[in-house]
Amino acid sequence: MTSQSQDVVERAIASRREAVNEAVLAELPVVEPERLYEATRYLLDAGGKRLRPTILMLVAESLADVDAATVNYRSFPAEGGEIDLLKAAVSVENIQTFTLIHDDIMDDDDLRRGAPAVHREYDLSTAILAGDTLYSKAFEAMVDTGAAPDRSVDAVRNLATTCTKICEGQSLDIDFESRDAVTTDEYLEMVELKTAVLYAASASIPARLVGADDDTVDALYGYGLDIGRAFQIQDDLLDLTIPSDKLGKQRGSDLVENKQTLVTLHARQQGVDVDGLVETDSVDAVDEREIEAAVDRLREAGSIEFARERARSLVESGKDNLGVLPDNEQRDVLADIADYLIEREY
Amino acid sequence: MTSQSQDVVERAIASRREAVNEAVLAELPVVEPERLYEATRYLLDAGGKRLRPTILMLVAESLADVDAATVNYRSFPAEGGEIDLLKAAVSVENIQTFTLIHDDIMDDDDLRRGAPAVHREYDLSTAILAGDTLYSKAFEAMVDTGAAPDRSVDAVRNLATTCTKICEGQSLDIDFESRDAVTTDEYLEMVELKTAVLYAASASIPARLVGADDDTVDALYGYGLDIGRAFQIQDDLLDLTIPSDKLGKQRGSDLVENKQTLVTLHARQQGVDVDGLVETDSVDAVDEREIEAAVDRLREAGSIEFARERARSLVESGKDNLGVLPDNEQRDVLADIADYLIEREY
Repeated sequence: MTSQSQDVVERAIASRREAVNEAVLAELPVVEPERLYEATRYLLDAGGKRLRPTILMLVAESLADVDAATVNYRSFPAEGGEIDLLKAAVSVENIQTFTLIHDDIMDDDDLRRGAPAVHREYDLSTAILAGDTLYSKAFEAMVDTGAAPDRSVDAVRNLATTCTKICEGQSLDIDFESRDAVTTDEYLEMVELKTAVLYAASASIPARLVGADDDTVDALYGYGLDIGRAFQIQDDLLDLTIPSDKLGKQRGSDLVENKQTLVTLHARQQGVDVDGLVETDSVDAVDEREIEAAVDRLREAGSIEFARERARSLVESGKDNLGVLPDNEQRDVLADIADYLIEREY
Repeated sequence: MTSQSQDVVERAIASRREAVNEAVLAELPVVEPERLYEATRYLLDAGGKRLRPTILMLVAESLADVDAATVNYRSFPAEGGEIDLLKAAVSVENIQTFTLIHDDIMDDDDLRRGAPAVHREYDLSTAILAGDTLYSKAFEAMVDTGAAPDRSVDAVRNLATTCTKICEGQSLDIDFESRDAVTTDEYLEMVELKTAVLYAASASIPARLVGADDDTVDALYGYGLDIGRAFQIQDDLLDLTIPSDKLGKQRGSDLVENKQTLVTLHARQQGVDVDGLVETDSVDAVDEREIEAAVDRLREAGSIEFARERARSLVESGKDNLGVLPDNEQRDVLADIADYLIEREY
């Protein structure tokens, strides 16, 4: 990926992020009870790249072959009439946000996007309820795009099964923490459920809404699934390879917390004593040299490169699906986003 | 309500409860990850009257004017084809169950239906996730009844807005605990959101699914809303008037925990020092005589009778809506259920 195409991706994301952010404000006003609605907005307002809604919008734009400069996302061309594409975009962002809020409770994480987690800024009850509210608001938005009813049913069904899978993935992730022998296949299945299916939904739901055929929907689902898997592997790599100040949290925290990742699972298979890599058992107490030595050991075992290669190959297989889209700028950006996911440093 | 009509209600509930319980098993199999799915089933398996799905089924049966003895709920007659009514029934029961699981976390309640709450039997993370899974399963089921797509869209939209309102109601309920001056209107609004809207959804969604007109849908929504309000007021009364052993928890626990109810709000307006009624601040330490004296004081102030009268009048206004249904056995049972909600002792 050249720095020029990186610029294209970042501009494509930035312009759509602005549209998504405006839509979040419009779709999620702070009404009574205010504390609840402020809590639903807290994490959304704290930032986020809006990658999933951006992918959703790019797929719809590509399929409809529209000019991004003039298109109206609120009256977006679709089979049988116009749809409100931003409602679908807000819907997937709401699901993403609800899972982050509930995950932070389960993982007892204090920080998210450089700010206190919702259950720290507010309290446990408010955080559970804010997540639950975003959950229903996501369905309210998805059922209300104005798409043909059979298309809306299709989109809602996909959103609901996606949410079920996300819960299954989070459950597996928690189980893995207390299990020694996790295989890389099991890990990748967990990543598929916890992370990748929401990318798959984000890439395929717009195709369902505008009226694409089943082959197109399936190919786009495959694109999302593969780049979503790659995204999570890259997330695991960033935890090991990026300095703490750039990462916004302690580098190597996954090692300190004995979190299983593709890197550590590979290293274990290579005979590395993964549990003994970092002796310190608190993120606050660990020092940079201990992490550095552990990462060196993982690098020597080939585990960093193994994970990197796996992410690369997933990005390639994901991009192979984009042939179902018309040859236009948005399709190119979707390919660039796939590359970007494994080249990003934050 | 005669004891004969009480028998009719209890038999009507019992036969449909059996169908709902079988459907819950079928719609929510324990698959991988097993611990998660066991947790989603734990509270459902612990019992429950299945009042909401029963109301849903009775409304559909009444509108379709079918014979309960021979009807197939999985191929239920509707406009434009047959629908799977049990999916809709399971959907509302799943929503009810998810809210109980999350509420018990927020209220830090140890027991539910005489068994440990899910976050006690399992753990906090599993309980949050079990609720989240029931949430998505509810939407999976509701979108999948096989109703005409525009009808499904309508039902899903109503389910989603209902969930949002339930979250708002729970948020208000929590806020009230730390507020002195709550008016009876504010209390009744909270009850409407937290409890009554799910009754309203249960009574009106079947009308949406089978293809009833808007006036019928609206009237049935009104029926559910009024009897749902009455149900909650009765719940508050039971806490004061039923012996602990029959109640399955300490009688008067709402007084110990300073929970605002229609009874205490009325008493406060009459000048009763409600906060001083029960000095003991722990449910485990309170004794029966202290509760008895407090309840006597509330009775003298007319507050018990005030709440009872309010519940009665809501049941009457709720029943007035049933005129939109054909004159059949199921309509009579729906009227009897309304009476039953305020005459039940558990």
